[in-house]
Amino acid sequence: MIVVMKADATEEQLDAVKRRIVEEGLRPSVVEGAERNIVGVLGTITRDHESAFEGMSGVLQILRVSRPYKLASREFHPDDTVVEVGGVKIGGGDLAVMAGPCSVESQEQVLNTARAVKAAGGNILRGGAFKPRTSPYSFRGLGVEGLKYLAKARDETGLPVITEVMTIEDLPAVSEFADIVQIGARNMQNFNLLDAAGAQSRPVMLKRGLSSTIEEWLLAAEYILNQGNPNVILCERGVRTFETATRNTLDISAVPVVQKLSHLPIVCDPSHGTGKWYLVPAMAAASVAAGADGLMVEVHPDPDHAKSDGGQSLTFENFALLMERVRALANVAAGTVPAGNSQFGE
Amino acid sequence: MIVVMKADATEEQLDAVKRRIVEEGLRPSVVEGAERNIVGVLGTITRDHESAFEGMSGVLQILRVSRPYKLASREFHPDDTVVEVGGVKIGGGDLAVMAGPCSVESQEQVLNTARAVKAAGGNILRGGAFKPRTSPYSFRGLGVEGLKYLAKARDETGLPVITEVMTIEDLPAVSEFADIVQIGARNMQNFNLLDAAGAQSRPVMLKRGLSSTIEEWLLAAEYILNQGNPNVILCERGVRTFETATRNTLDISAVPVVQKLSHLPIVCDPSHGTGKWYLVPAMAAASVAAGADGLMVEVHPDPDHAKSDGGQSLTFENFALLMERVRALANVAAGTVPAGNSQFGE
Amino acid sequence: MIVVMKADATEEQLDAVKRRIVEEGLRPSVVEGAERNIVGVLGTITRDHESAFEGMSGVLQILRVSRPYKLASREFHPDDTVVEVGGVKIGGGDLAVMAGPCSVESQEQVLNTARAVKAAGGNILRGGAFKPRTSPYSFRGLGVEGLKYLAKARDETGLPVITEVMTIEDLPAVSEFADIVQIGARNMQNFNLLDAAGAQSRPVMLKRGLSSTIEEWLLAAEYILNQGNPNVILCERGVRTFETATRNTLDISAVPVVQKLSHLPIVCDPSHGTGKWYLVPAMAAASVAAGADGLMVEVHPDPDHAKSDGGQSLTFENFALLMERVRALANVAAGTVPAGNSQFGE
Amino acid sequence: MIVVMKADATEEQLDAVKRRIVEEGLRPSVVEGAERNIVGVLGTITRDHESAFEGMSGVLQILRVSRPYKLASREFHPDDTVVEVGGVKIGGGDLAVMAGPCSVESQEQVLNTARAVKAAGGNILRGGAFKPRTSPYSFRGLGVEGLKYLAKARDETGLPVITEVMTIEDLPAVSEFADIVQIGARNMQNFNLLDAAGAQSRPVMLKRGLSSTIEEWLLAAEYILNQGNPNVILCERGVRTFETATRNTLDISAVPVVQKLSHLPIVCDPSHGTGKWYLVPAMAAASVAAGADGLMVEVHPDPDHAKSDGGQSLTFENFALLMERVRALANVAAGTVPAGNSQFGE
Repeated sequence: MIVVMKADATEEQLDAVKRRIVEEGLRPSVVEGAERNIVGVLGTITRDHESAFEGMSGVLQILRVSRPYKLASREFHPDDTVVEVGGVKIGGGDLAVMAGPCSVESQEQVLNTARAVKAAGGNILRGGAFKPRTSPYSFRGLGVEGLKYLAKARDETGLPVITEVMTIEDLPAVSEFADIVQIGARNMQNFNLLDAAGAQSRPVMLKRGLSSTIEEWLLAAEYILNQGNPNVILCERGVRTFETATRNTLDISAVPVVQKLSHLPIVCDPSHGTGKWYLVPAMAAASVAAGADGLMVEVHPDPDHAKSDGGQSLTFENFALLMERVRALANVAAGTVPAGNSQFGE
Repeated sequence: MIVVMKADATEEQLDAVKRRIVEEGLRPSVVEGAERNIVGVLGTITRDHESAFEGMSGVLQILRVSRPYKLASREFHPDDTVVEVGGVKIGGGDLAVMAGPCSVESQEQVLNTARAVKAAGGNILRGGAFKPRTSPYSFRGLGVEGLKYLAKARDETGLPVITEVMTIEDLPAVSEFADIVQIGARNMQNFNLLDAAGAQSRPVMLKRGLSSTIEEWLLAAEYILNQGNPNVILCERGVRTFETATRNTLDISAVPVVQKLSHLPIVCDPSHGTGKWYLVPAMAAASVAAGADGLMVEVHPDPDHAKSDGGQSLTFENFALLMERVRALANVAAGTVPAGNSQFGE
Repeated sequence: MIVVMKADATEEQLDAVKRRIVEEGLRPSVVEGAERNIVGVLGTITRDHESAFEGMSGVLQILRVSRPYKLASREFHPDDTVVEVGGVKIGGGDLAVMAGPCSVESQEQVLNTARAVKAAGGNILRGGAFKPRTSPYSFRGLGVEGLKYLAKARDETGLPVITEVMTIEDLPAVSEFADIVQIGARNMQNFNLLDAAGAQSRPVMLKRGLSSTIEEWLLAAEYILNQGNPNVILCERGVRTFETATRNTLDISAVPVVQKLSHLPIVCDPSHGTGKWYLVPAMAAASVAAGADGLMVEVHPDPDHAKSDGGQSLTFENFALLMERVRALANVAAGTVPAGNSQFGE
Repeated sequence: MIVVMKADATEEQLDAVKRRIVEEGLRPSVVEGAERNIVGVLGTITRDHESAFEGMSGVLQILRVSRPYKLASREFHPDDTVVEVGGVKIGGGDLAVMAGPCSVESQEQVLNTARAVKAAGGNILRGGAFKPRTSPYSFRGLGVEGLKYLAKARDETGLPVITEVMTIEDLPAVSEFADIVQIGARNMQNFNLLDAAGAQSRPVMLKRGLSSTIEEWLLAAEYILNQGNPNVILCERGVRTFETATRNTLDISAVPVVQKLSHLPIVCDPSHGTGKWYLVPAMAAASVAAGADGLMVEVHPDPDHAKSDGGQSLTFENFALLMERVRALANVAAGTVPAGNSQFGE
């Protein structure tokens, strides 16, 4: 933390800041500039320190130096984390493709979709049993019944299953039936749920909040890691901007940024990221080319009749075309740049 | 809902859309334009309808006509909702000022603050016992102990208490000790918590999400109303934008927009809305002049030593100055425009 | 400028940074932390320095300490700038109300509006003769003919005139006919136009860009000041966010932020800031209560038939009501807080 | 245009709207819903119509049906526009790579860079002679001298040249020396400059504004096309969001969205889009995989000593690695999806 003093700050104000630093068990180091003084603060600094100092008299602003997360940070954990479920690796160079319907609607729907996903080369089955919906009048999912349908589809196809959990109460059931527990964008800062997900043993996929910075996202991952669960997967699913041509703006630059700041694997969800099925293939390809460790894609046997998100779901045929394209790109990407962006150094 | 067809949509595509409308129990009404056809859809339309039709062949886009909320809507409930707790009215022309520390830190801190708030003319005591924190390493509140401190401060001063609840598990305790249950910005779309808050009897103050549209906010209120709790207060607390000079951008226009769309009372939180204590007075004044039904303001006996949000908390003295100013403005505002914006008609 | 080194930066990398600092005629001051080193850089730093150092090996990030503007800064020019035109003061405690039609449409329209503005207590006439329009097929203004209509309305009513200039070519004509030259939001970073406006003698009102930070806005003002024109007025007119209920989000917090950072007067434009006439009165009141030095408001004799921006223009009657309200608020605001936010200190 | 009436609109209000429609030479078609009426408006509608009707009594909102641009629209011009300069095609399946320094600094710098760009497989030389700078104290370019250096580099290497124009006055010189005239993000809505660029004969590359919607961007292109210049290239260069880890957020989804809405070629600029040189390769790859018609990349012989944008410029070596990667991806992308996204239908 660096405390930047105002140009006209008095000696007393500077002294008060230095005393306050010492009071917190930290150490001040003053750099005297021509225009103003700055005070480097050495020791273990928290966000609350920053806020407290920001309001002090004579202080112009606070600059942060340390990354506020440790467990999620590549600086302190240089090697890539690779999460493995049912033989599928997420991270470390492979491409994990999670596909399936937005909502689980029936056993048949899930089974048919799982078969199509597998046939096309997808390797994880997605499907929502507990659905967060903007309106209370929308379909909110089949609940535990839906989890059972997913489990049956796994039994038949061998595809591991990922599904969303919305509350601490539902976590035991979701952990029982699913291979990966998903925390959705709207719950990215549901801190009690993060703690609970960190205290169970299934890998957790944490979607980025609608307007969360990458730093806030890594801090949310830190909550899970801090409870002892090392298997966190990040999922970029689009952020909210002023643009209305797409449902969200898929921030693909989050892929190389996260890979630089963190060791955790990162996948992209072009379905929510665009909200339009006809944009999904191009954005899936872009994600893979940017180095994403995987994709999450909505696929439905009959999108026009889907109970939710029909407009952004691919037919089986279009999903197969997408898979062909991204597999080819993944090979080239891997061939040209063997170890992420590392040859571009830093 | 209106389905806008593409300029080159075929007769078959138009027929498929019309059939699909009838299949859903709705009624199509085609307007033939020179350039393209549009199809008005009559009946009870959901969000899921919109998404499903958006993906159909030949469809250019879907336009929404109906408001997706009913219970929160002024169209269907013209009279202002007035929430009353412990003799204080929120809504209906009075000014409710909720003030107190960000976090409850000790019995003494809360008591002293409550006395200062009351002396300055504040009429509700705020204080956080369960704290949502971006970092897992920050102070997360005193929990139930903190609730007891707040209750004791109420006993002494007579000020009703508002405090935040973060999980369904904590809701019974919060409902027991608090007069108003607060749902924070990060939980605005924690739909299970909204349902639970709607199923208990305390009034609920619902903060706007960091990047939630006003429509999404009213839909979140609809969740609570839909469970049978009519006493919902909305709180604008700043939205996320590109600007970094302030912590958030306080969207004061939400006040007149909400008052037009909804009958629910709306208050503003200039402390979170700006993140800087020296901006709070001006933004509190602006909120009141815009017609807000109240304010939520952070006050601390010693902001430099606050355990959280010190940089945005007012001293007792500055809070008293703020109260003087907003009371004077409230009188003038009330005197000049007796019934909201109604004299400006519509 | 502070250069933050990576935790694993080598001694060579640190040396290279220090050499590069000296090479630029600046002076390094290293603070050695437990986790990483930081290098304070003393001397006159530019943006280009920051960018160049950011790419160097071993550098984690660059933190900025100095404000990049000087002439616009309150630190170096503590007293409020007061701009005076035709006896009207902008800045320094008075309330300047600029009102009139979006576009000048005819001599009669401008004259009638000017009379109504004056009768209601407005003190500057606005009207667009050169109109920036999103679509090439929209009405683009009457040009010099429109300027003449404005000048005639000034002759009759005594109201000084403000109007927009879009190009360097039109600047001589605009300077000749207008009392204040307006630079619109879309031209806030048209740097050649800023230079030219700084080189002529009329006061300049500079609107904030659609998504410009306050710092960028003050830097744009710096361009004008740097050419020798000290009479710059800032105008907050709403920024672009994700919200669609309003045309823009009027960032009223820009008022106290600008007043803290700069000595330049600041006015608000609630017409463009909201895009809806029925939101204008509340947001005008909020702006005044926040301490704005003035308002810019669109008024039209017959908004339903306006050639542009009809939906956000007030009738004469509603403008008169607005004036009554803001005058009353201005008196109270002035009465309670005599000198801006200064009693809230810092 | 569709006029949505309020639920409680009176018969008189509906009649007034219908009369107003006829008065404008348009034709109303009323759809009577259970809850409210809507009025389809047939004929040639402008933005000004929309605004005027929005303010009428009894009107809830205006919904837009037509695209406001024609010349830029794929609906009315189905075939891809291919711009050709000096033997290089932009659009139609080839990959155009425009590379070079942010600013032209010297003849030697430009020549060396041009040679390196050509050797690595880049096919157009970029370089700024007129530089838009946020601060008036930054380096603003060499002007016409810089144009001459670029022209000489073209003479030697055969690479066509693209450079930015900031004012109408400089346009003749830029048109004389450059092969493609660039209009920067800050001038995207400098409408007079757009008109002037449309009236000269060089192809124009139009960068997307910092917070411009895709629709506004296509309307800006419409200005150029409307003056008779058919050769417009669009360039996505990142939009402004809340995220601070990157300078801008490169909106790669703009590539497939633009290709669907328009026939104009679109390229991406990952240098400005990210602001960090180490993110450029991944984002260049993503752009190409998404189907972009080209790239614009900043390359500098010695980024640490660049006069501008050093932090986002690639060395010659890193540019060569980038080229290798994107060429490989372009081949695969082309191989798998021969004709844009067309196989994914619509």
